[in-house]
Amino acid sequence: MKPPLRLAIAGLGTVGLGVVQLLQRNAELLEQRSGRRLVLGAVAARDRRRDRGVDLKAVRWFGDAAAMAGDPEIDVVVELIGGAEGVARAVVETALDQGKPVVTANKALMAQHGAALARRAEERGVTLAFEAAVAGGIPIIKALREGLAANTVTRLYGILNGTCNYILTTMRESGREFAEVLAEAQKLGYAEADPSFDIDGVDAAHKLAILTSVAFGGEVDFAGVHIEGIRHISAVDIDFAAELGYRIKLLGLARLTEHGVEQRVHACMVPRTTPIAHVEGVFNAVVAEGDFAGRIVLEGRGAGAGPTASAVVADIIDIATGRRTPTFGVPASALRKRPAAPMAHHQGAYYIRLMVVDRPGVIADITAALRDEQVSLESMIQRGRAPGEAVPVVLTTHLTEEAAMRRALDRISRLDTVLEPPRMIRIEDL
Amino acid sequence: MKPPLRLAIAGLGTVGLGVVQLLQRNAELLEQRSGRRLVLGAVAARDRRRDRGVDLKAVRWFGDAAAMAGDPEIDVVVELIGGAEGVARAVVETALDQGKPVVTANKALMAQHGAALARRAEERGVTLAFEAAVAGGIPIIKALREGLAANTVTRLYGILNGTCNYILTTMRESGREFAEVLAEAQKLGYAEADPSFDIDGVDAAHKLAILTSVAFGGEVDFAGVHIEGIRHISAVDIDFAAELGYRIKLLGLARLTEHGVEQRVHACMVPRTTPIAHVEGVFNAVVAEGDFAGRIVLEGRGAGAGPTASAVVADIIDIATGRRTPTFGVPASALRKRPAAPMAHHQGAYYIRLMVVDRPGVIADITAALRDEQVSLESMIQRGRAPGEAVPVVLTTHLTEEAAMRRALDRISRLDTVLEPPRMIRIEDL
Repeated sequence: MKPPLRLAIAGLGTVGLGVVQLLQRNAELLEQRSGRRLVLGAVAARDRRRDRGVDLKAVRWFGDAAAMAGDPEIDVVVELIGGAEGVARAVVETALDQGKPVVTANKALMAQHGAALARRAEERGVTLAFEAAVAGGIPIIKALREGLAANTVTRLYGILNGTCNYILTTMRESGREFAEVLAEAQKLGYAEADPSFDIDGVDAAHKLAILTSVAFGGEVDFAGVHIEGIRHISAVDIDFAAELGYRIKLLGLARLTEHGVEQRVHACMVPRTTPIAHVEGVFNAVVAEGDFAGRIVLEGRGAGAGPTASAVVADIIDIATGRRTPTFGVPASALRKRPAAPMAHHQGAYYIRLMVVDRPGVIADITAALRDEQVSLESMIQRGRAPGEAVPVVLTTHLTEEAAMRRALDRISRLDTVLEPPRMIRIEDL
Repeated sequence: MKPPLRLAIAGLGTVGLGVVQLLQRNAELLEQRSGRRLVLGAVAARDRRRDRGVDLKAVRWFGDAAAMAGDPEIDVVVELIGGAEGVARAVVETALDQGKPVVTANKALMAQHGAALARRAEERGVTLAFEAAVAGGIPIIKALREGLAANTVTRLYGILNGTCNYILTTMRESGREFAEVLAEAQKLGYAEADPSFDIDGVDAAHKLAILTSVAFGGEVDFAGVHIEGIRHISAVDIDFAAELGYRIKLLGLARLTEHGVEQRVHACMVPRTTPIAHVEGVFNAVVAEGDFAGRIVLEGRGAGAGPTASAVVADIIDIATGRRTPTFGVPASALRKRPAAPMAHHQGAYYIRLMVVDRPGVIADITAALRDEQVSLESMIQRGRAPGEAVPVVLTTHLTEEAAMRRALDRISRLDTVLEPPRMIRIEDL
């Protein structure tokens, strides 16, 4: 049997403690699957005295995580601090430079510096593993990089943020408005005190950029992701979605187009019959379409101590057994640098909701604006009559170019019978 | 770069041709992901002259697949013949004995001889890979063996047979009876001319036995699987299922109980709100519950040339890059030999449908039989009145031991007001 693998964990938050607990509770199983013992040799965290409910007496304690990463008695460094810069980045770079494999759950770091870190790992001939950075306990990186390795991936999309999915699911089930459901999610611990990172789509965009790189063999391009959040989704849109046979989900979507790599994070109307429509609450799901495998769906818990620890330790076992894969599936030198497809070129169907004065001629003005921009209407719903008052009008379009849709919306929003800025939600044909 | 990896394919049916096409079409990608070229060196099939629509001019041709497996110019043997004995087994054993890695899609072989073949592979220090044997293009073996490697799996279940799922989905959507839908499925190529292997649950049982071994680290025990098929499901049961909030699926289910390993393949009523209820048509899905990851669902195409070839070539890439995992996740010597849990000890809820004479006192006789066997009723539906004629009565029970349920059904079936053998479908709490 090989000598024990000595691990160091930087960051003892929820996930770090989850990893410690997993290493302790499943020690026998891990030894069988790794062919060697996994030993926690060191941890780095700020407050040593805090009672964290796990036994760390036999473990060396570092105040300086980067120093720990360079310690000669450590074989593998597990980075669970988070953030694209600062200590987290220093820990990862120090470990790689010392020729030590790194396991990280850090999506911001991988999204913003993934390509450079992959080159760095490759130069030193060590593994940089990040299964835990995307979709928690779902082994999606392994599935894309190894399980679907024989496929040219044609499209990829997923529910990548549990907070948003929880809010949208609860809005649909309860009929309540966004602000109220967000406040409740914060109370329940499903949303942060400052929720913008989640609800404005940044977290999902980090994950999408990483998945895109793995799926299409390109350099991670976080800056190329078009990002919208879910603050503008209201209960009435969720009702109309149901009426039209859709559910509203925040998706990350990526594919290769003639204009480059299209990466988008925004609320979508998805057909109620598609598997991802049934992924509810805090669950995540990723769908990948391969030219031979067809459509594969992976669903599971996208966050939390247990699922994230499961992914971290799976990466550790790969390292312990000597299973190696290039960081993004192909050698760093083979990663393509493709342009980002401008959102203006996006082709899709659209849901538009307008609040208009209920007065003759309103619809004619709106449809004229659409016609002038070559936007083809698929359906229209005008519910209820209230002459002279505000009523909602919902339009859905056939396949349209985003730029044309934007121009049409700009014209429509300037009509004096249109009382609020138009709400637009893209309809996805999944 | 490493020297090319020379492959031999035994069996040029649909899947074999799919593998040849994949190797040709995605050659560049495979070379990047493998770090070496994958070269098809030889094929073995009966009829050399048949036009198969792929270019095999540069490939050596063998009539004797076992001789090909022993050929010194072949590095990896891909067995796509099928069947637990005969040529397929000889090919795999010959290759392993010669120290050559084997990739197989053969579920019958792995279900019936998996543990012995794993030992044989381990003695020679070579890989025996079988991703394609279970659930086609879904990388479920990799997900269980590596992605969830840090977890103690607590339960596993899935839709493992696309033919049955297609039939049950179509019955529900069309309201038609089993025999009619089966005949249609045969015309469409979704069911074999002799469909018994699929519709009687044997195919699903092969796959379940393999999954159970990987998930729980035990020796494959196909003989320990309780197997029932779907011939007895009728349109009226599907209607009642919908009324009760369920869908009917043929599932394979496995877990460890105090009595040993419980492995069952049978039709189940599953809550309409559970993800697997929405897996429709020819799609497969596997759900694994890990102590840290929680519930993971993988869904995709479970059969067909493309998906199966995708899985076969993923295994080849693992071999090409040197990624190795013990056949069933842990060394063969560590695989436990657990007893099979007798079905009589199974605990579950039950759906019972009786055809009875509509006459006073009938229900009292039935409920007395249930009471005498300590079976606790959860609900009863008696639809319509037709005094003196046959009407359906549906009962659902609370948690009950299978043996007690069987005794109660035996008594009920002997009542002279009960006109047909009772239909029983287990209700699963998923």
